[in-house]
Amino acid sequence: MRTSIATVSLSGSLTEKLTAASRAGFDGVEIFENDLLASPLTPEEIRARCADLGLGVDLYQPLRDIEAVPEDEFARNLRRARHKFELMRRLGADTVLVCSSVSPLAVDDDALAARQLAELAHLAQDFGIRVAYEALAWGRHVSTYDHAWRIVAAAGHPALGTCLDSFHILSRGSDPKGIEDIPGEKIFFLQLADAPRLAMDVLQWSRHYRCFPGQGGFDVAGLVGHVLRTGYRGPLSLEVFNDVFRQAEAGPTAVDAHRSLLALMETVGATALPPPVVPTGIAFAELVTPDTAPVTARLAALGFARTARHRGKPVDLWQQGDARILVNTGPAARRDGTQLAAVGLESPDPAGAARRAEALLAPVLPRRRAREDVPLDAVAAPDGTELFFCATGHDPRLPDWRSDFEPVGHTPDTPGSAPGVTRIDHLALTQPWHQFDEAALFHRTVLGLRAQESVDVADPYGLLRSRAVTNADGSVRIALTVGAAPTDDTVRAQHLALATDDVVTAARRFRAAGGRLLPVPANYYDDLAARHGLPEEELATYRELGILYDRDAHGVFRHCYTTTVGRVFFELVQREGGYRGYGAPNAPVRLAAQHAAR
Amino acid sequence: MRTSIATVSLSGSLTEKLTAASRAGFDGVEIFENDLLASPLTPEEIRARCADLGLGVDLYQPLRDIEAVPEDEFARNLRRARHKFELMRRLGADTVLVCSSVSPLAVDDDALAARQLAELAHLAQDFGIRVAYEALAWGRHVSTYDHAWRIVAAAGHPALGTCLDSFHILSRGSDPKGIEDIPGEKIFFLQLADAPRLAMDVLQWSRHYRCFPGQGGFDVAGLVGHVLRTGYRGPLSLEVFNDVFRQAEAGPTAVDAHRSLLALMETVGATALPPPVVPTGIAFAELVTPDTAPVTARLAALGFARTARHRGKPVDLWQQGDARILVNTGPAARRDGTQLAAVGLESPDPAGAARRAEALLAPVLPRRRAREDVPLDAVAAPDGTELFFCATGHDPRLPDWRSDFEPVGHTPDTPGSAPGVTRIDHLALTQPWHQFDEAALFHRTVLGLRAQESVDVADPYGLLRSRAVTNADGSVRIALTVGAAPTDDTVRAQHLALATDDVVTAARRFRAAGGRLLPVPANYYDDLAARHGLPEEELATYRELGILYDRDAHGVFRHCYTTTVGRVFFELVQREGGYRGYGAPNAPVRLAAQHAAR
Repeated sequence: MRTSIATVSLSGSLTEKLTAASRAGFDGVEIFENDLLASPLTPEEIRARCADLGLGVDLYQPLRDIEAVPEDEFARNLRRARHKFELMRRLGADTVLVCSSVSPLAVDDDALAARQLAELAHLAQDFGIRVAYEALAWGRHVSTYDHAWRIVAAAGHPALGTCLDSFHILSRGSDPKGIEDIPGEKIFFLQLADAPRLAMDVLQWSRHYRCFPGQGGFDVAGLVGHVLRTGYRGPLSLEVFNDVFRQAEAGPTAVDAHRSLLALMETVGATALPPPVVPTGIAFAELVTPDTAPVTARLAALGFARTARHRGKPVDLWQQGDARILVNTGPAARRDGTQLAAVGLESPDPAGAARRAEALLAPVLPRRRAREDVPLDAVAAPDGTELFFCATGHDPRLPDWRSDFEPVGHTPDTPGSAPGVTRIDHLALTQPWHQFDEAALFHRTVLGLRAQESVDVADPYGLLRSRAVTNADGSVRIALTVGAAPTDDTVRAQHLALATDDVVTAARRFRAAGGRLLPVPANYYDDLAARHGLPEEELATYRELGILYDRDAHGVFRHCYTTTVGRVFFELVQREGGYRGYGAPNAPVRLAAQHAAR
Repeated sequence: MRTSIATVSLSGSLTEKLTAASRAGFDGVEIFENDLLASPLTPEEIRARCADLGLGVDLYQPLRDIEAVPEDEFARNLRRARHKFELMRRLGADTVLVCSSVSPLAVDDDALAARQLAELAHLAQDFGIRVAYEALAWGRHVSTYDHAWRIVAAAGHPALGTCLDSFHILSRGSDPKGIEDIPGEKIFFLQLADAPRLAMDVLQWSRHYRCFPGQGGFDVAGLVGHVLRTGYRGPLSLEVFNDVFRQAEAGPTAVDAHRSLLALMETVGATALPPPVVPTGIAFAELVTPDTAPVTARLAALGFARTARHRGKPVDLWQQGDARILVNTGPAARRDGTQLAAVGLESPDPAGAARRAEALLAPVLPRRRAREDVPLDAVAAPDGTELFFCATGHDPRLPDWRSDFEPVGHTPDTPGSAPGVTRIDHLALTQPWHQFDEAALFHRTVLGLRAQESVDVADPYGLLRSRAVTNADGSVRIALTVGAAPTDDTVRAQHLALATDDVVTAARRFRAAGGRLLPVPANYYDDLAARHGLPEEELATYRELGILYDRDAHGVFRHCYTTTVGRVFFELVQREGGYRGYGAPNAPVRLAAQHAAR
């Protein structure tokens, strides 16, 4: 199917928008009137630019407040429409969107609306143009798709059809099943947008909070299914008004937009993508650092051993139980400071995982970094984190990344032999502010992970939002986090949470080895006593070590934090009884303590 | 009356919040539980810090989900409460807030609620503590103030009273008149917040969008009037949850907060401030620039003449009609680049205007810059713009700022003698992102201007918001503008709009004198033709010069723009027939053209 995007969904000048849409792989665009008015290019130049970029001008939008008005007003509207049809001829656009009237002049008279729309379509036909009539959710008299369709049917003009818009239909709670009663050839256009479920005024909701399919709470795929069953074969076109996208760079937004459409098309069976290969564990996390000492001192105190060194690069492997951490002091480290730069995901089919990622527009990274390296499939996540698809010894036919490493003589503790770290529990990655929803969509569609609800966390200097993506058994958990504002660099900390079966002993061992744990205020423990009635002795231990405590319906969570190096800190976590969260209720105390420790 | 603020209304650590509240002049604070939990200070240290800062601990908040629960649950709640009462004794807080329960365990049984609250109050009394019971707008069974009061009355315990919160009352549309039925001594606390009128889920509305009284759409003063008539003499306390304040610096937020309370107290007759002195015109606008040539070339081409020079400073006065522009090349210019740094406002009582500003916490600037200068009353606006209160020849008893200037021989055109600029129509000032609402409140309360509705304007790289403040006859108009995000410096342009009776001739003259007007795309004029049916000749003129056109119910607006110097550009505007706006529908085209011209 043809994919299209409305220019209003992207930021920048019209030229920037067109370039971004083309690069992301769209087949066409809807040109939004204001983008054309503000462009120094003539309609002919815009047409040529689109042709050069391989983009069709699929829709010009919109004509407003046209129908069901007194005759003198309608005469003026026809005059205005003629101007626009002349413009569309120059632009090479053959479909115009007419939104149901919001004008106070409009009357509640379907027959009049039908007659005037037929007259408009008649004029349009002279220009080779089709009119697509759409019900705005806040239209004055016409606000539902079936109502708009009844008027189109009554008008009975070949150049008049309807335009369906998932936002206008689903935001009103209309049942999209009735779409199947419309003949496919009378659906002239299909606009798609998702939105978070918000109880707010529908006009504000529409203008500021729309998002790409799969990012919100609507069943956009279900709606598209109904539309396809009518025989509709026109474009799937994204029309997303969103305050964040307006500020974001057009290029990445267009890629995210196209990815959402591809995933949607897969869901409705309109395209076949390589199937998802869900990761089955975390193979490693890679830290880059310009100065190894603060990082390796923490790792050593946590009980990690340096077990191997890369044959060709300044990268060490530190291991404890099944937790593997690479410490890289290569060029990236000197550029960016200490941070989490890459994640290895265990994959039953690394090449398949990479094929799916590529089909969903993730940048594929070179398979070999150096000639002698083991080939590894890897892509870049939207935040720039490199994701490696690995087979760590689980399939002898697949290359093992560890072959690039030379043992250095130290062996890690056997899991269970000491009460240390058993595995990586989760990773927390800070996302670019403009792409928080895209990041969740990426991890869901590309990696086949499940996205949990997003939660707000109060930092002393603004609200953070956090959303976890996980596989079914929780062996892969990634917390995506974003700050309150685009510049919120005070909270751009990433962390690595390490699972242990005994956080108290692990914390004691860390301290005894010279590690410093984040101090937690005494007031926190007084409150814990008030809330949970824990034994005084247990509380005293938590107090001594700075261990935080949470409970959910499934179990108990105990956790503590190291101090921060660069952008990175470590967390020791002990999950019991199937606790599912990440200690979010404790996050404000942790964040305040981190600010205080700066 | 005593003024107080909840620590949750300010950003930062508890210490930072307390310092900011004290510096802004508050008498007390409500300490929010999470702020205490996250603080490394003990309750005793917090108490001492507050005492040092002259702050009372007026409320500790909150206890939640206490009442109308099964007995075993209530026993646990009492245990928890006892912990909190012990804490409050250490903290020196004698009133605790109890919010109506949102727990799924709570039952709809007022008698049970009253009995349990009385029992809680009985326990509190042992600690010298009073319990203030408040209805949350989203409480499970108790969500209105009168319901909460009925339960308090039924409980009949001397240590139990009610807490009223303007947000919870007004967001539900409750009639606040019934407040007068509550005896004043049973109102233990009064929390105040305003909010914009939003049709959204009340919990989200409350948690993210509250604002200070006078910034939103509620009649907070009316509510306070009812409360005062009961005989209530406790604190007026601000409790504002707001995503923007969470990120803003605590110091300025606290000042804005206290200003809003002072203005509220004035409205309800609880305090007397120097009366507002509404400005009657714009005496001058002052540009600072490190390089005069680009600015003065534009001024000269616009028809301004350099008429005088400051006796002691590198400041020139440029004049045309009643428009006066100071061009300052002093030290500030070298620091900040070309920008609008000060505004002179004609005032019938400059000293009175400054007294009011000072009473409303505006920083007062030194009356004399140099020993020989004429004394001038001036304050700083929240965005740093200096506001001078002037008497430009309208009262011989008052000093005239022009006495500091020495004529240089050029005389300006007499108004009307040439079709040039007659006066300054309006100024557009970019506001700090975190303080947009505060800026409007400042101009309204301090200067006595009227704030108009705020409008959204689409810039290619994000939405801008703009709000005009004006005096009654429109001789003072200031447009306050803010970008889409805290860092949105691409749009931090200020401008000076100059009124003319003939924008076409003024624009021609500017061009003929070598000035460059902002080019406007041809597509804009095609659309103008489609919309308004203007004569082709008139359109051709606009097209040639880049003149934009708008209409409202009152009249017509024609305007055009110079190119930008530093952060500043000029606009020529012609208002006809009482047009009231600022050409907002044309702003997207203008903004896109400005981006293109960069």
